[in-house]
Amino acid sequence: MKLATLRDGSRDGTLVVVRRDLAVYTPATHIVRTLQQALDQWAVFEPALRDLADALESGELAGEPLDVDRLLSPLPRAYEWVDGSAYITHVVLVRKARNAEPPATLRTDPLVYQGGSGAFLAPTDDIPLRDPAWGLDFEAEVCVVLDDTPMGTTAAQAEDHIKLVLLCNDVTLRNLIPAELEKGFGFFQSKPATAFSPVAVTPDELGDAWQDGRVHLKLRTSLNGQRVGEPHAGPEMHFSFHDLVAHLCKTRDYTAGTILGSGTVANADPATGSSCLSELRMREIIASGAPRTRYMQEGDVVRIEMLDPDGDSIFGAIEQRVVSAP
Amino acid sequence: MKLATLRDGSRDGTLVVVRRDLAVYTPATHIVRTLQQALDQWAVFEPALRDLADALESGELAGEPLDVDRLLSPLPRAYEWVDGSAYITHVVLVRKARNAEPPATLRTDPLVYQGGSGAFLAPTDDIPLRDPAWGLDFEAEVCVVLDDTPMGTTAAQAEDHIKLVLLCNDVTLRNLIPAELEKGFGFFQSKPATAFSPVAVTPDELGDAWQDGRVHLKLRTSLNGQRVGEPHAGPEMHFSFHDLVAHLCKTRDYTAGTILGSGTVANADPATGSSCLSELRMREIIASGAPRTRYMQEGDVVRIEMLDPDGDSIFGAIEQRVVSAP
Repeated sequence: MKLATLRDGSRDGTLVVVRRDLAVYTPATHIVRTLQQALDQWAVFEPALRDLADALESGELAGEPLDVDRLLSPLPRAYEWVDGSAYITHVVLVRKARNAEPPATLRTDPLVYQGGSGAFLAPTDDIPLRDPAWGLDFEAEVCVVLDDTPMGTTAAQAEDHIKLVLLCNDVTLRNLIPAELEKGFGFFQSKPATAFSPVAVTPDELGDAWQDGRVHLKLRTSLNGQRVGEPHAGPEMHFSFHDLVAHLCKTRDYTAGTILGSGTVANADPATGSSCLSELRMREIIASGAPRTRYMQEGDVVRIEMLDPDGDSIFGAIEQRVVSAP
Repeated sequence: MKLATLRDGSRDGTLVVVRRDLAVYTPATHIVRTLQQALDQWAVFEPALRDLADALESGELAGEPLDVDRLLSPLPRAYEWVDGSAYITHVVLVRKARNAEPPATLRTDPLVYQGGSGAFLAPTDDIPLRDPAWGLDFEAEVCVVLDDTPMGTTAAQAEDHIKLVLLCNDVTLRNLIPAELEKGFGFFQSKPATAFSPVAVTPDELGDAWQDGRVHLKLRTSLNGQRVGEPHAGPEMHFSFHDLVAHLCKTRDYTAGTILGSGTVANADPATGSSCLSELRMREIIASGAPRTRYMQEGDVVRIEMLDPDGDSIFGAIEQRVVSAP
């Protein structure tokens, strides 16, 4: 089942079911009004939503043509957005880029940070940038949405709490990071609003690609139509989503609709490219002593997408242009 | 106007208006169902809520007796919980306690961290503790609730965005902090669920005590009935709530219902005591070489309250007992 949120002038939009090929949608408001409300009582609403998806898939319902520009983030605002950093290659490269050491516990203790979750960007919203000197970068990631997940949940129990999978662009202001992390409290101003993919899908939509709490497919990112990277999101995800859930749940509970990110998808093989510019710049520095690639500027467009083995887009594309902001 | 949220079995509870003396309340559900919904359209709902508060105050409405144990946090879950650390004395003492230096920008660049906001504790909820070795501490703070506050909002514009004031217990697991901050991404497991005061009040309820984006009253904290501290929340708040709002808004927007905390209230004068055990322990170390006070254990009760100049409780008391958790 694929779900999306239609822009309707309200803060939380209108829940719609989208056909697998992303061509058409049908409103789900006769079942439940918003995705948050569906997640709040998932067991109650899921069967009827799946029936609606089946009717759309079989052609029993024709649906209406889907215009991605009319979609908000599946959750336009969420109660929590927790982002991991589960790809070791990414951690090592970006820390090297800012002359910082990877943590000693790199391979034993997951890195996560608490992101701002009150105002997400829609999948094709412009990225507002107040100062080009801040070093605007994208980070392409895979995310999951949890239901109520209590303190003490183990990795073995985590699978049952993962209700949806989607992609994100964890927008980052690279040049604000060093001074911010120096203060010791983690990211804040360096992490502006995050954007999510047009649709969120139930894990069964991924078939065999959803395994061991990882998405075993490639994540494709391009900048101004040029490929930046297409690393595999599966084997090199050092901590699975199951591991990350167990890490989150050590000391508190989570409410339904919590979004959990994988961190920037990265592979050790440089030929797979990158899911952010910072890694690319670091590899240029290693290769030739200086970065050739600049951070994003006004007018630049980033596109993030994941294709299934048949070459069809699973989540639709995040496609965002940078605009200057006051 | 004083607002609270009644426990009704739902996730977000029922909005009620509470009389100034906290003795009685009246449901506001004929106006709007939840506090989040009221904040989402504050200009629409505020007048009717104020009329209801006036009717309760004048005796036109009798109201029903208020039982604080029936209250949830005013916002049982919020879209963002951002906590500052605006009292210099607190920053200096707790960093000293863990042999860390205060940041070089201590007095020029506010410290804030993004807290978990999906599952708050009610004002009299037990604090669950899975491992006493984690070093459970309380942190008594003043907080404000914002309406929609756009990127670029300045300190001079911040006042208009502050709709409510309340207190919190920013529960902290001290012994998890050093290893967590060492990783560079800020607090996460070391900050379990936060609790808020029984009622949230509009700034006008504070009269002259609400000035320059600061609450000019003392914040009283006790542990097992013994006074821990009663520092003044006003003059030594180095960055005002206005300054903190401007800091938040540098790179993104905030949705209505965002909660912003002051950080642990602390004064330079040790005679005022502390709003957390970590400071108290550090002062004991400075005075005698070793801490005498232990962190909270099962059965300990913390109480946090703020009185007006007449000695009446403004927000009601946060009063929480530590219980062991599986």
